[in-house]
Amino acid sequence: MSAINTIPPQTGAAFEIGKGDILTVIDPFGKQVSDMVLFNKADKKEKISSGKTMDFEETILLTKGNYLWSNRSQKMMEIIEDTNGRNDFLLAPCSPETFQIMYNNPSYHPSCLENLNKNLLQFDIEIDDIPTAFNIFMNVQFDKEGKLKVLPPTSKEGDLIRFKAEMDLIVGLTACSAEDSNGGIFKPIHFIVTTSEGIIKDIPDFNKSS
Amino acid sequence: MSAINTIPPQTGAAFEIGKGDILTVIDPFGKQVSDMVLFNKADKKEKISSGKTMDFEETILLTKGNYLWSNRSQKMMEIIEDTNGRNDFLLAPCSPETFQIMYNNPSYHPSCLENLNKNLLQFDIEIDDIPTAFNIFMNVQFDKEGKLKVLPPTSKEGDLIRFKAEMDLIVGLTACSAEDSNGGIFKPIHFIVTTSEGIIKDIPDFNKSS
Repeated sequence: MSAINTIPPQTGAAFEIGKGDILTVIDPFGKQVSDMVLFNKADKKEKISSGKTMDFEETILLTKGNYLWSNRSQKMMEIIEDTNGRNDFLLAPCSPETFQIMYNNPSYHPSCLENLNKNLLQFDIEIDDIPTAFNIFMNVQFDKEGKLKVLPPTSKEGDLIRFKAEMDLIVGLTACSAEDSNGGIFKPIHFIVTTSEGIIKDIPDFNKSS
Repeated sequence: MSAINTIPPQTGAAFEIGKGDILTVIDPFGKQVSDMVLFNKADKKEKISSGKTMDFEETILLTKGNYLWSNRSQKMMEIIEDTNGRNDFLLAPCSPETFQIMYNNPSYHPSCLENLNKNLLQFDIEIDDIPTAFNIFMNVQFDKEGKLKVLPPTSKEGDLIRFKAEMDLIVGLTACSAEDSNGGIFKPIHFIVTTSEGIIKDIPDFNKSS
């Protein structure tokens, strides 16, 4: 058992955490995005909501002190630490069509949506039930006309974000597969789950991507 | 049969429109928001997605020339006219909890989510399946730090937005119930559906809110 769980480049993971547990997501090499979705373990129709989160938190940019809210207006997680400070909750996870439409690439390309889907199926969560993800370390810039631009992440080697679970959760997490979001190089994502007392939890068999 | 369909203040509607049909949403008195959600009539698991729309359109502010996209990366509607030019796709529809949490009002309060739910049930669409709505005429301002502020709409008497359907759709539409979003006064919303040849379509029994 290792404290650190590794999500290989362009893959994903899904696992359960309990209320009060702390999830730490680490960018081990820098400039790597991780997409995260959340479901209430007790009732998977309750899930993370970008619209409810931006509404209750009254901000587009979410960092330490902000909560992530569900479609049923319940708190799912609190962000308790954020060493980088730039995360995105505007854009949907990259999908096969992202590469066909935006990258003009008709060939097969791994994507966060596919990797979330592969890993969440074990919890009977279907692809259409996957909402807009909280895009950790993603550097989406907006100007005052609202125009959006995806720049390489500002995260450096070892930057991390730490979440406290407000309910029992199913977590989907990726090492993002989109060239433009990750400075052109695909790297792994690390994560650690601890109890509120700091005891490391073993997360077996979390990666069904390959 | 009247050309103009009226959604009374603080209520909603749901109805079907065909591919190629034109939906016109009108603010008859000014400063009134209307929340809109869309579902693919042929498969209701496909629905409007704020995350996919902002991703493909590369903008927070959507107006004439922009498309509204689904969670399956398909175009659902094109905005073909927009006389006001300020719509929001960041914030979720107001819900009972919006008034409890943000307005500190523990009493019953009508909401867009409840009104969408009441009207969409006839199409077997459940409350948890209602996504972040496209908030027509809603004036959400953001600063460069991403802080959000809801101001009264800039829409004037008779302002309208016109959409062309890119597939057969189920449409949910409201006259919004939130004080802050509507300049403190609740007004009706009007809508008209025409075929691509300009023939007005009758939309019977569209309001099950009261």
